[in-house]
Amino acid sequence: MNFTSDNWSGVHPAIAENLTRHAAGMARAYGQSDLDKRIEAKFSELFEREVAVFFVGTGTAANSLALAAVNRPGGVAFCHSEAHIVKDECGAPEWFTGGSRLQSVAGKAGKIDPKKLVRELRKFRPDFIHAGQPMAVSITQATEVGTVYQPGEIDAISEICRSKGIPLHMDGARFANALAGLGISPAEMTWRRGVDVLSFGGTKNGCWCAEAMVFFDPSAAKDLPYIRKRAAQLFSKTRFIAAQFEAYLEGDLWLELARSANAKAASLSEILRADLRCRLAWETEANEVFVIIDEALADEWIAKGLGCYKWPAPEDVVDSLAEHEIVLRFVTSFATGDGEVRRFAELVRGFPA
Amino acid sequence: MNFTSDNWSGVHPAIAENLTRHAAGMARAYGQSDLDKRIEAKFSELFEREVAVFFVGTGTAANSLALAAVNRPGGVAFCHSEAHIVKDECGAPEWFTGGSRLQSVAGKAGKIDPKKLVRELRKFRPDFIHAGQPMAVSITQATEVGTVYQPGEIDAISEICRSKGIPLHMDGARFANALAGLGISPAEMTWRRGVDVLSFGGTKNGCWCAEAMVFFDPSAAKDLPYIRKRAAQLFSKTRFIAAQFEAYLEGDLWLELARSANAKAASLSEILRADLRCRLAWETEANEVFVIIDEALADEWIAKGLGCYKWPAPEDVVDSLAEHEIVLRFVTSFATGDGEVRRFAELVRGFPA
Amino acid sequence: MNFTSDNWSGVHPAIAENLTRHAAGMARAYGQSDLDKRIEAKFSELFEREVAVFFVGTGTAANSLALAAVNRPGGVAFCHSEAHIVKDECGAPEWFTGGSRLQSVAGKAGKIDPKKLVRELRKFRPDFIHAGQPMAVSITQATEVGTVYQPGEIDAISEICRSKGIPLHMDGARFANALAGLGISPAEMTWRRGVDVLSFGGTKNGCWCAEAMVFFDPSAAKDLPYIRKRAAQLFSKTRFIAAQFEAYLEGDLWLELARSANAKAASLSEILRADLRCRLAWETEANEVFVIIDEALADEWIAKGLGCYKWPAPEDVVDSLAEHEIVLRFVTSFATGDGEVRRFAELVRGFPA
Amino acid sequence: MNFTSDNWSGVHPAIAENLTRHAAGMARAYGQSDLDKRIEAKFSELFEREVAVFFVGTGTAANSLALAAVNRPGGVAFCHSEAHIVKDECGAPEWFTGGSRLQSVAGKAGKIDPKKLVRELRKFRPDFIHAGQPMAVSITQATEVGTVYQPGEIDAISEICRSKGIPLHMDGARFANALAGLGISPAEMTWRRGVDVLSFGGTKNGCWCAEAMVFFDPSAAKDLPYIRKRAAQLFSKTRFIAAQFEAYLEGDLWLELARSANAKAASLSEILRADLRCRLAWETEANEVFVIIDEALADEWIAKGLGCYKWPAPEDVVDSLAEHEIVLRFVTSFATGDGEVRRFAELVRGFPA
Repeated sequence: MNFTSDNWSGVHPAIAENLTRHAAGMARAYGQSDLDKRIEAKFSELFEREVAVFFVGTGTAANSLALAAVNRPGGVAFCHSEAHIVKDECGAPEWFTGGSRLQSVAGKAGKIDPKKLVRELRKFRPDFIHAGQPMAVSITQATEVGTVYQPGEIDAISEICRSKGIPLHMDGARFANALAGLGISPAEMTWRRGVDVLSFGGTKNGCWCAEAMVFFDPSAAKDLPYIRKRAAQLFSKTRFIAAQFEAYLEGDLWLELARSANAKAASLSEILRADLRCRLAWETEANEVFVIIDEALADEWIAKGLGCYKWPAPEDVVDSLAEHEIVLRFVTSFATGDGEVRRFAELVRGFPA
Repeated sequence: MNFTSDNWSGVHPAIAENLTRHAAGMARAYGQSDLDKRIEAKFSELFEREVAVFFVGTGTAANSLALAAVNRPGGVAFCHSEAHIVKDECGAPEWFTGGSRLQSVAGKAGKIDPKKLVRELRKFRPDFIHAGQPMAVSITQATEVGTVYQPGEIDAISEICRSKGIPLHMDGARFANALAGLGISPAEMTWRRGVDVLSFGGTKNGCWCAEAMVFFDPSAAKDLPYIRKRAAQLFSKTRFIAAQFEAYLEGDLWLELARSANAKAASLSEILRADLRCRLAWETEANEVFVIIDEALADEWIAKGLGCYKWPAPEDVVDSLAEHEIVLRFVTSFATGDGEVRRFAELVRGFPA
Repeated sequence: MNFTSDNWSGVHPAIAENLTRHAAGMARAYGQSDLDKRIEAKFSELFEREVAVFFVGTGTAANSLALAAVNRPGGVAFCHSEAHIVKDECGAPEWFTGGSRLQSVAGKAGKIDPKKLVRELRKFRPDFIHAGQPMAVSITQATEVGTVYQPGEIDAISEICRSKGIPLHMDGARFANALAGLGISPAEMTWRRGVDVLSFGGTKNGCWCAEAMVFFDPSAAKDLPYIRKRAAQLFSKTRFIAAQFEAYLEGDLWLELARSANAKAASLSEILRADLRCRLAWETEANEVFVIIDEALADEWIAKGLGCYKWPAPEDVVDSLAEHEIVLRFVTSFATGDGEVRRFAELVRGFPA
Repeated sequence: MNFTSDNWSGVHPAIAENLTRHAAGMARAYGQSDLDKRIEAKFSELFEREVAVFFVGTGTAANSLALAAVNRPGGVAFCHSEAHIVKDECGAPEWFTGGSRLQSVAGKAGKIDPKKLVRELRKFRPDFIHAGQPMAVSITQATEVGTVYQPGEIDAISEICRSKGIPLHMDGARFANALAGLGISPAEMTWRRGVDVLSFGGTKNGCWCAEAMVFFDPSAAKDLPYIRKRAAQLFSKTRFIAAQFEAYLEGDLWLELARSANAKAASLSEILRADLRCRLAWETEANEVFVIIDEALADEWIAKGLGCYKWPAPEDVVDSLAEHEIVLRFVTSFATGDGEVRRFAELVRGFPA
């Protein structure tokens, strides 16, 4: 029963096989192979418009380079206080941008509160350069706490961005899980809602290292080839990232894997919801479940073989915790099996089915 | 007949298979898996001393982070004027170090001339801060022009480094080819000669993306975990880099592949040496062959299907070129077959065997 | 009646005269003149220990270079949420450090709450590199809201720094005003309390551009000459910064000027405290007065010639503001005259004395 | 007899007086005072077109920020191999640009050879991102070796820039001396010749710290306010830089001072030219004289009180030096007196007049 993280999972067989299938032969390096070009085109098809795509090796690279692409001197990017870019990337976004600042904005359930965003943005006036200048807003979809921005919620953020003339970035490390949760199209969850740049993640959902930066306005990416190369993210044999995406996108495998992970999370969520000793911290809308639980009980489960993560309590729930309560995070992945869910149910129930 | 670059080749079957073999299952992310730890230990064994190892995704990352690890304010790193770090990395080393400078040093056959290095270093005096301060010397082994530093030549450089108190970095993108060429041990080509940090490349020699930074003094790498993470080079499923190295190092596969590539280069070299219409630019000591040739003849060969690269003539040969002569580069790899070499011989000869 | 900022004031006559006195003649450039050396030594005398001193041109430079001197990869520096470095320097500290992060810590009256600092620091664990690593704490003395850290309050912060092994920086843009307020010695307010690096400001208190970085452990500053030069803060005729400090420190002029400014602030404070239509936001402990006031009344005063600044309400008072209330800031300087204070009293009272 | 450097000189009395004249009173900070605005306008008048002007504190800041303003990812700026930006600024230009590269271009007499510039630029092709991309050319006027680009020579460089779509920067640390040497207008030496950005220096010619960045196309400077502030070069009391320029430009004082310095250099030049024991390295066209001389004789003069600088021999003269010969640099300034020149003549001659 290992629900520690979806990045603890391995590689989906179809993706591993595709890597092997392309292993032989010679091909142009540095993103110029036919396979690279073909898969890049596939992204335009997927998003129903011409996009500029750049393959990179890690989600941190995708996010950081996206911000580098919209960088401004004295720039400030706004994100939720739980965002991966501000909590878990060791300052990479600031470093890739030569010192821009990430400004946390609060909001319930891992989502930026539009009113609070407006309030933060008001602190920056063109005639007061000392504060710096807004350069981007970044939202995470699915969020860090397993929820999903509804289309209207993305609209609300992107309207603010438009009114301030700053781009909207979406960290889609769990893009597939969010999409599977909402049941809309990639276009409807992104550029049709005003998203300008997307970090499209494959790694957490069955690839081994496949991330794509997607620019919905290709002209905004004209310097990206240099930015990516200078950041050591242009792989010589980049076609093997393309090969991963080829298998990943083939026949909607990616959505199938995400749906599977989400379904497993829903099952865990149900199991936990039914247990009176704990309560969900937020709704389970993708492949992560967060539960508020007495630490002793959590430790008991962990001792019995449960793999999961004690999560630092975010602002919007910290005050609702009783003395010994903590937040526990469960993450499912494409590789989570029915058996694991069943064993977890047994663990919670205290006896086998 | 594709001799354009060794990074046009794919992945060796044993390495592809090993990726597949490890595809299933869960394991700790971010370099903490058993496999990661085991392969890291393997490097210490390989180099006959305890080393600190960091897996990264590209050679540019390995080189740039190595320099970042030894960075100093106003720092100047010295390298040969043909070095990859100064010619082909789009400013990544400078960017990763926040603006250090790469100072080219001339030298024949792709190797830094120790006397010229001393002369350059003399320009930097502790009491003249305006010039900045030396921070490292970087040599490439095998060099960019297919030659190999002899042990004594490395000694000469490292003695200068010691006398100035600056570390010596080795860009080993073609480390295996150099080692196969010299027939000495990894230790004898590195730390026993005074090398402090090594970029150990696997990508060009049969991996798809496997590079390792090797610090011979582990204490010099104490900040590297943060430096690597901040540079977006800590892969979540880093065990798949480890898996590549596992197969790569198993049973000396890596040296076998390098020997094969070198042998093919030797054959090309012989073929070209025998042809009176061209002459070798430098000795063929690893897996690259450079020939000085009339451009018309080169174009004829290329038109007939030869894949290779017109190389900007380096300083030490540019003056020896006749009017229409150019430099042509051939690179062989683990994947270069006997058939290709034979077809090339036929092409040069003008008729089938 | 101009209380907009102390940096709107000019240059004290004694300092202007001293610039003129040193105008003629030749002297070594780049900080090597006798005058430079003599004034540097004066700082060691002033602080009763050997210090390393670096003259720079702006307070932002002093603060940013101080942080650059203690920089670490993935570094996070902690400061109060109202600190100049995080609100008013356009990202300079982040930029000078190549992307370190400033983490705001709340606290009443412009001072870091030690408990909250401890809580923030707990988020960084050596085994969790994703969060980055603490690199410094920075306090502002006098604070941005006109209060002054008491000796014991500095002790509390520096003890936390010691326990975490990170240095303590003091932004002393209004160092003289704080010192005059506390009536203790420079040593007692700094290194005897655990301060490691000080930005010693002269500009706001009568110089035109004279700031000094003071390192209480000179060995911690060994790279600073390069860091400063690379940041374009090594003036060729730096002796004219030294000349400003010479006059500034002569016969305790600096403390006299600060005492005068503080006394004027105390008078403004009294006038406002006596007026029932407003209330002080915080105690007046240096040369700044903040008052909570109905915006209409503030506008009336401003219309009648009052120069001052509407200050964005900090966290610790924002909830105590009634509907139309705002925070108004008054700053006095060495140049503030009795007449201005009297005219302000008349303005508040509504009729001449 | 101190000819070490023009930055060893002090401040011209008229400039010192003007600082004192403006010392009293209150004025808007951060470049918003009436005086700032008035002197900014004066620059537009001086250059006969609307320019954007930014005052900064050091020449290194002006040069580095000029390059920061035209920065590109993987950017490479071209300058002469003797240029101050590459030899004497401790990596500031690279650091301010987050790691761009300075590429030295050879040329006689301190001037970029246009043919060699073209050859260097050819190495950068839009389809080969690995090399980076050209971002600027920087010329120094007067050059580091005391010569002056003739108008036609500037034309030749700027035409190359135009053809490549990259801006031309002029480092005018000794702008006045060059202008006085050529006897043309500021416009004729800059934008009418295709110069896009100018570092206009006042410090070496009688100011204590007054440098201006001049953008001939103001729209190219729209981010400069943020860039300058973030670089800690926005002085709060910036009006005192304006005050220096006010006096400096008043009644053509600046040109008068430069003419005086140039005349003294011409006299030194004549004295040296007449001496058979040495020979000029280059023509004396501004306020610097370089002479090739036996080191023993140089040491004799220095022992007798001559202040000057042994200059590392540049490429274009190093091969013409005899065994014991070195290059000696003499710099005159606005403050160099007739007496000093006379004493030098006596020293050379070996007896008083």
